[in-house]
Amino acid sequence: MKKICVVISSRANYSSIKSVLEQISLSRKLTLQIVVSASALVDRFGAVEKTIKRDGFKINFRIHILLEGENVETMAKTTGLGLLELPTIYKYLKPDIVLIVGDRYENLATAISSSYMNIIIGHTMGGEVSGTIDESVRHAITKLSHIHFPASIDSKKRIIKLGENKKNVFHVGCPRIDLAKRILESKKYKLDNKDLNLGVGDKIDFNKPFIMVSQHPVTTEYEMASKQIDETIKSLLKIDYQKIFLWPNSDAGSDKISKRIRAWREKKKLKKIRFYKSFPPETYMYLMSKTKCLIGNSSSGIREGAYIGTPVVNIGSRQNGRERKKNVIDVDHNANKIVTAIKKQIKHGKYEKSKIYGDGNAGKKIRKILETVKINIQKKISY
Amino acid sequence: MKKICVVISSRANYSSIKSVLEQISLSRKLTLQIVVSASALVDRFGAVEKTIKRDGFKINFRIHILLEGENVETMAKTTGLGLLELPTIYKYLKPDIVLIVGDRYENLATAISSSYMNIIIGHTMGGEVSGTIDESVRHAITKLSHIHFPASIDSKKRIIKLGENKKNVFHVGCPRIDLAKRILESKKYKLDNKDLNLGVGDKIDFNKPFIMVSQHPVTTEYEMASKQIDETIKSLLKIDYQKIFLWPNSDAGSDKISKRIRAWREKKKLKKIRFYKSFPPETYMYLMSKTKCLIGNSSSGIREGAYIGTPVVNIGSRQNGRERKKNVIDVDHNANKIVTAIKKQIKHGKYEKSKIYGDGNAGKKIRKILETVKINIQKKISY
Amino acid sequence: MKKICVVISSRANYSSIKSVLEQISLSRKLTLQIVVSASALVDRFGAVEKTIKRDGFKINFRIHILLEGENVETMAKTTGLGLLELPTIYKYLKPDIVLIVGDRYENLATAISSSYMNIIIGHTMGGEVSGTIDESVRHAITKLSHIHFPASIDSKKRIIKLGENKKNVFHVGCPRIDLAKRILESKKYKLDNKDLNLGVGDKIDFNKPFIMVSQHPVTTEYEMASKQIDETIKSLLKIDYQKIFLWPNSDAGSDKISKRIRAWREKKKLKKIRFYKSFPPETYMYLMSKTKCLIGNSSSGIREGAYIGTPVVNIGSRQNGRERKKNVIDVDHNANKIVTAIKKQIKHGKYEKSKIYGDGNAGKKIRKILETVKINIQKKISY
Amino acid sequence: MKKICVVISSRANYSSIKSVLEQISLSRKLTLQIVVSASALVDRFGAVEKTIKRDGFKINFRIHILLEGENVETMAKTTGLGLLELPTIYKYLKPDIVLIVGDRYENLATAISSSYMNIIIGHTMGGEVSGTIDESVRHAITKLSHIHFPASIDSKKRIIKLGENKKNVFHVGCPRIDLAKRILESKKYKLDNKDLNLGVGDKIDFNKPFIMVSQHPVTTEYEMASKQIDETIKSLLKIDYQKIFLWPNSDAGSDKISKRIRAWREKKKLKKIRFYKSFPPETYMYLMSKTKCLIGNSSSGIREGAYIGTPVVNIGSRQNGRERKKNVIDVDHNANKIVTAIKKQIKHGKYEKSKIYGDGNAGKKIRKILETVKINIQKKISY
Repeated sequence: MKKICVVISSRANYSSIKSVLEQISLSRKLTLQIVVSASALVDRFGAVEKTIKRDGFKINFRIHILLEGENVETMAKTTGLGLLELPTIYKYLKPDIVLIVGDRYENLATAISSSYMNIIIGHTMGGEVSGTIDESVRHAITKLSHIHFPASIDSKKRIIKLGENKKNVFHVGCPRIDLAKRILESKKYKLDNKDLNLGVGDKIDFNKPFIMVSQHPVTTEYEMASKQIDETIKSLLKIDYQKIFLWPNSDAGSDKISKRIRAWREKKKLKKIRFYKSFPPETYMYLMSKTKCLIGNSSSGIREGAYIGTPVVNIGSRQNGRERKKNVIDVDHNANKIVTAIKKQIKHGKYEKSKIYGDGNAGKKIRKILETVKINIQKKISY
Repeated sequence: MKKICVVISSRANYSSIKSVLEQISLSRKLTLQIVVSASALVDRFGAVEKTIKRDGFKINFRIHILLEGENVETMAKTTGLGLLELPTIYKYLKPDIVLIVGDRYENLATAISSSYMNIIIGHTMGGEVSGTIDESVRHAITKLSHIHFPASIDSKKRIIKLGENKKNVFHVGCPRIDLAKRILESKKYKLDNKDLNLGVGDKIDFNKPFIMVSQHPVTTEYEMASKQIDETIKSLLKIDYQKIFLWPNSDAGSDKISKRIRAWREKKKLKKIRFYKSFPPETYMYLMSKTKCLIGNSSSGIREGAYIGTPVVNIGSRQNGRERKKNVIDVDHNANKIVTAIKKQIKHGKYEKSKIYGDGNAGKKIRKILETVKINIQKKISY
Repeated sequence: MKKICVVISSRANYSSIKSVLEQISLSRKLTLQIVVSASALVDRFGAVEKTIKRDGFKINFRIHILLEGENVETMAKTTGLGLLELPTIYKYLKPDIVLIVGDRYENLATAISSSYMNIIIGHTMGGEVSGTIDESVRHAITKLSHIHFPASIDSKKRIIKLGENKKNVFHVGCPRIDLAKRILESKKYKLDNKDLNLGVGDKIDFNKPFIMVSQHPVTTEYEMASKQIDETIKSLLKIDYQKIFLWPNSDAGSDKISKRIRAWREKKKLKKIRFYKSFPPETYMYLMSKTKCLIGNSSSGIREGAYIGTPVVNIGSRQNGRERKKNVIDVDHNANKIVTAIKKQIKHGKYEKSKIYGDGNAGKKIRKILETVKINIQKKISY
Repeated sequence: MKKICVVISSRANYSSIKSVLEQISLSRKLTLQIVVSASALVDRFGAVEKTIKRDGFKINFRIHILLEGENVETMAKTTGLGLLELPTIYKYLKPDIVLIVGDRYENLATAISSSYMNIIIGHTMGGEVSGTIDESVRHAITKLSHIHFPASIDSKKRIIKLGENKKNVFHVGCPRIDLAKRILESKKYKLDNKDLNLGVGDKIDFNKPFIMVSQHPVTTEYEMASKQIDETIKSLLKIDYQKIFLWPNSDAGSDKISKRIRAWREKKKLKKIRFYKSFPPETYMYLMSKTKCLIGNSSSGIREGAYIGTPVVNIGSRQNGRERKKNVIDVDHNANKIVTAIKKQIKHGKYEKSKIYGDGNAGKKIRKILETVKINIQKKISY
C-alpha cells in the first residue's frame, strides 16, 4: 500500500482536492493520510476541518500554525511553523507521496519539508499564472515537486517549459470541476438550510436572484486592501439584488478587508447582504450555478466558472494572466466600473460551458497515476 | 540610501559573497546590513562569523537556527526557524533588497520571508545545475527572486528559460572568482600560520606537496553517506602526499560523514592528514592554487577550480550537470577509481585557466546594478 | 546606564506597567527598552501598541507570536514562539534587567528566556492568588525571578514563603493604582470621544448611568466558556442600564466567548450595549470610577476597584483566593444570581477606598530599586 | 486505562525514570506513551533513544528540538521548540498524566505545554536544591505540577513549603536507586564489552582500578566553563589511575568544555583516559559501584553515590545545597585541591550506604499512585 498524505490548509484547498481524497479512499493500492492545518482549523475562516469530518474522512493530525495579524510577517512565520511541525508528522506517518494543492503561501512549508525529507511530492494546479504572491509560490512549489497534475493543457506546457521532466507532468484537469460536474448532473441536489442559515446579516431567499462576492487581499498590494474592498462594497450598494458575501481568506491584508466590512456593517448600510465564512464545496458549486454573477477576485470564477458558465466580474490584479474564457469581465478597483460590469453580466446571463479546466475526471486520473507512478527522488532540470 | 541586507548561513556563503559585501560597503548609495545564521555561527562548522568580524564587517543580527541531528528532518526545521526569525528582523532593519547566495537549503527561509514581505530579492549563482537537494532549492529560490546575478552565460540562459524577466537577469560572474583573482595576482599574499595551525591531526608542511579533500553529504542519497566517505578515505590511504581535509558542511548526512572520519582517526590509520573546520576565503583560494589536486564533491573545484586551473577529482552525483571545464575528472564512489583519478590529476598538474565562472569583477558589477535597479515587486512568469 | 527591558504582551500588561515605564524614562540611570508582542499587536484585541506609541514611548521590537485558535494548544505554542524570538532580541538589546508583568501565560516565555540567558528578572504582581492557569503561571514566574515587586503586603509574605530571598522582595503596590490615583485626583480629566466612539453596538451616553462588563475565559474550565458567558449575557438582558462590554482577552476559550457574543448580537437582542476592544489605561480607570458596577471576572475590579471603591460583581472561579475588599460580591455562573448581585451593588453605590493594592507610588518605588539594586544571577531557595 | 506520557530529553532523564517505565508497562491500569526529544536523539550526546529501544520500550514520537550552539540563547530556543511540538503530540496521544523528570531546562517546555493543556503533571525529583539554572527550573516545574514524587524526605518537606497541596506530595525515593539496587543485588551482572569498547581514547582494563569523571557546565557561570574543565583535566594528569570520562550534557557551555577536551586530546597529553558519550543506565550504576572515585559535578555522585557508597569529589557550585552524605568531598575549581581530594577519597575507599535518596522501590510506588490518584486540574497555593 502506498501512503498518500494530503496537507489541507484552507477551505479552498479542500474543495480543490476533495474528489481526489474520495478516489484515494476507494483505492486498494493507496492509503489516505490527512493533515489539517492553518486556517482550515480556525473558526473565523470557516474551520473546514468540520466539513472534512462530516464528509467521512479521518484526519490524522491537526496542526495550529496560523498566526494572528494577517500581515506579511505572519504569512512568513506561519509557513515557518508548518516547517517545524510537518517533519515530526512525516516521520510518524511515513508517507510515500505528499500531495500539495495549488499555490497558497503556507503550502511552501509542505513542499519544503517533503522534498528535504526525500518524500515524493505530487502537485495539483501548477503551471497556472496569476497575480499576488501566489504567482511566485506556485512556481516555486513546481520546482520542488516531482509529479505534476496541471488542470489545463496550457499549464501542462508551462510546467514543461519550467524544466520539469515531461514524463512526470500529467494533464488531469482541475479536481474542483469533478465537484462542479457532480452537482450540475445531480437532479436531486438540494441546498442544506443548516449551511445557509449560518453567517451574519440579512436573510437570503435562495429562490430569488442573488449575486455572490468573494474578494481576497493581494499581498503584493497589501497596503491597498482597505481601499480595494471599499470600491467593491460601494458598487454593491448600487445593485439591488440579494448578495452572498464570503469573508476573505487568511492572506496578508485579510484583516484590513474584514475591518472595512465590519465598519460598513456597523453603519447599517449593507442591506440584503449575508456574510458567510465558508460553504461545503458542493454547496458552493451549486450557488455558482445559480448566481446571477460572481464578483471579486476568486479563482473559482475563472476555473469552475468556465465549466459552469457563471458570469464573473473579476476585479483587480489577483487573477492577472490566468487562462480564462468569455464568462469573465475584468475591471479595476473602481466602484462605477464594477457596477457597469455587474449589470452587463446580469443582462448577459449564463455563458457557454468550457472544459479548459477539465472534464470532471481529475480525481480518477490522479488516483491511477498515484497507484502506478515511479519517480526518482533526485530532481534534475530538463535543460 | 538603499539598504541591502545579506543573510549568511555558512562558511561557503561568505566566500561566495565577500567581494560583494566589500563593494556595497564602498558605495555611497548603499547601506550594508548583515545577518549571520545557522552553521555560520557554530564552532564545529567553522563559525565563519569570526572571519566576517575580523574582515571588518559589522554584523547586525545573529540568529541561531541550526538544529542538532544533521538529518533530513532537521534540515526542514532549521529552515522553519529561519522563517520565524527573519520577519522580525526585516521589520526592524527595513531592507530595500535582500541578497541571497546560491542554493543552501536554509536559504529558502530567506527567500520566502523576503518575498512574502514584499522585499526585492537579489539572487547570486542561480541557474546552475547540480545534484542533491541543492538542485531543487536553487531553482525554487530563482522563482521567488526578482533580480538574478548568474555566474555564467549558460546559467543566465537557464534563468531566462525558467520564465524570469530577461531585463532582470544580469550575467556578472561568480564573486568567488573575485577573490581567486585577487590571490593569484597578489605577489605578497602569505599564508597565516594561525589559520594553518588550527585543526586536528598531523602537521602539514605547506612548502611540500599536498592534496585537498572536501566531501559533503548528498541529501537525496542520505543513507549512503557513511559508505561514500569510506571509499574516499580508503583512497587517501593509498596516496602518499600530505592531505588537507575539510569537515563536511551541515547538510543532512554530515554527522554520518564526521562519525566515519572520527572512527578512522581513532584507529590511528590516518597519516599525514590534517582536518580543518574552515579557512578564511583567501586562504582557501591560495590553497586551491597550490594543491596538487582537490578531491571530493565541493563546487569550488568546478567553479574557482576552472579559473585557477586546479586539478579536481569530483566524486559522485553532487555536482551532476554543473557546467565544467577540463580540470575536473568525474568518478563514482569507488576507492580504486578515485586513486586512479587522483594519480592522473597529480601527473597532469595545473590546467589552463578558464573564465566561464567570471573574470573577477562580479562584486563591482553587482554593486552597480544594486545602486540603480528598479523592480516591480509583483513577479510574473514570462510565458 | 542600566538597560531595563519591558516585554508587553497585552492591553492589561500595559496598564499594569505604564507608570513604571514613565518613571524609567525619567531616570538618568536607566534606559528603557520596550518589546511588544502577542495580543498587544493584534487589532481584534485592541492592539495596545498604538496606545503605547501615542503615549510617547519608543517600541524597540514587535514580535508576532499569537496563534489563531484561542485554545489550550495555541496558548502553549504562542509561549513557544516567544521563546524562539526573545533570545535573538535580548542578544541585540543586551538588557541588564527584564521586567515581567503579572501572570499572563505568554509571560513565561519572557521569564524563561531571561533567566536562561542570565538576565536579572524583575517581576510585578507576584505572590497573589487566583484561579485559572494564571495561578500556576504566576508562581512559576516567581521561581524564575530575581527581584519581586509585590502589590500588597499579603503578596510580599507569600513570595517570601515561596522561598525567595527576603532582601529582594519589595512591597511597592500595584502600578495600576498609580494611574487610578492620577485620574481620581485630576480635576481636568476628560474622556476622549475618539476612544468612546470606537467599538460596535448601540451608542452610549456617558453622562447617563452605565455598568461595565469584562469577562475572560478560565482556561482550566475551558470547555465551559460558552455556557459561562451566556449566563452573564442573560443577566444583562434584565438590567436596564447602559452597558460597556469589553471583548475577552486572548486566553484559551476566548473564541468561544466571542462567538457567543456575536451570536447574541445577530439575534438583535443586545440593547444599550456597546462592545469595546480596549481603552487607554486612563480612560479605563476613569470609567471604573464612574460605572455603577463592574461585572465579570477581571482582576481590575478587585485591584483598582478596591482603591476606587467600584462596586464589583465577580463571577466564577477566575479570581478565587485573590485578596479583596468589601467592594466585591462573588457569585456563580448563574444569570439570576448575577442579576441579584448587580442590583445589590447598584443600590449600594461606591465603596470606601482601600490601599491594600498600593497608594499610587509604585512606579517611583520600582524605579528607585531598579536604579540601585544588586543581584546575584544564581538563585537559591531560602530553605 | 490511564494514559501516562513520559517525555525523555536526555540520557540522565532516562536513567532517572527507567524503573518507572518498567512498572507502568507492567500495570493493567496504565498505558505507557514515550516521547523522546532533545539530546536524547543526538548521537554526540549518546542518543539514549537507542538504549530505550534496546530495553524494549516503544517510542511514540521523536522530536528534534536541540539547537546547535550550546549557549544560553539556544537553551531558551530549544525549550521554545519543545513548546511548539508537544501540543500537537498531546492532542494526538491524549495523555491523562504527563510525567516530568527532574530539572533539565528543556523540561519546562513539557511542564508548560501539559499544564496549559489541562493535563495532570507528575514530577519526580522535585524539592531538591542545587546550583546552576536547574535550581530555578526545578522549582518552577514544581509550581506547574500537580503530583509530586520527591526522592527524599527533605525534598518532600520543601515541596510542601513551596505551597503545594500536602496530599499530592508522595515521598517515593529516587527511581535511579531502583537501578542501583538491582545491580548491587545482582550476582550475575556482567559488563557488556560492546558498550565498553565504544568511546575514544586509550583502552581501559575494567579489571584494574579506574576513576570516573563527569563534569557539566554551570549555565550561570557560563563564561567560565573552559577554565573550570581545565582545572579538572590538569588534576587528572596527576592521577595515575585509569580514567573513564563522560562528555558533558547539552547545557549552555557544553561546547566550551568539549572544545577544551578535544584540545587536550590533540596535544596527546591525555593518557589512560577513555571518553564515553553515555552508558546504559545499569552499566553506569555498575561502574559507580566499582570506581575508586567519581569526580566532577554530576548529581549521580550525590544521589546514587549515597546509596552505593561511591567516593565522590564534587567540584564547584553545580550541586550547591543538594542534600548529601559523607561520601562527597566538595572542592573548588582548583587542580591542586582536586588532586588532594581524589587521593583522599581513593585512600578512604567505599563509604557506608545510605537510603536518603530511596530504598529501591520508587518505580513501584509511583506506579501505584498513578493508578489510583485523583487530581483537580486547577491548582491553588496552600497559603
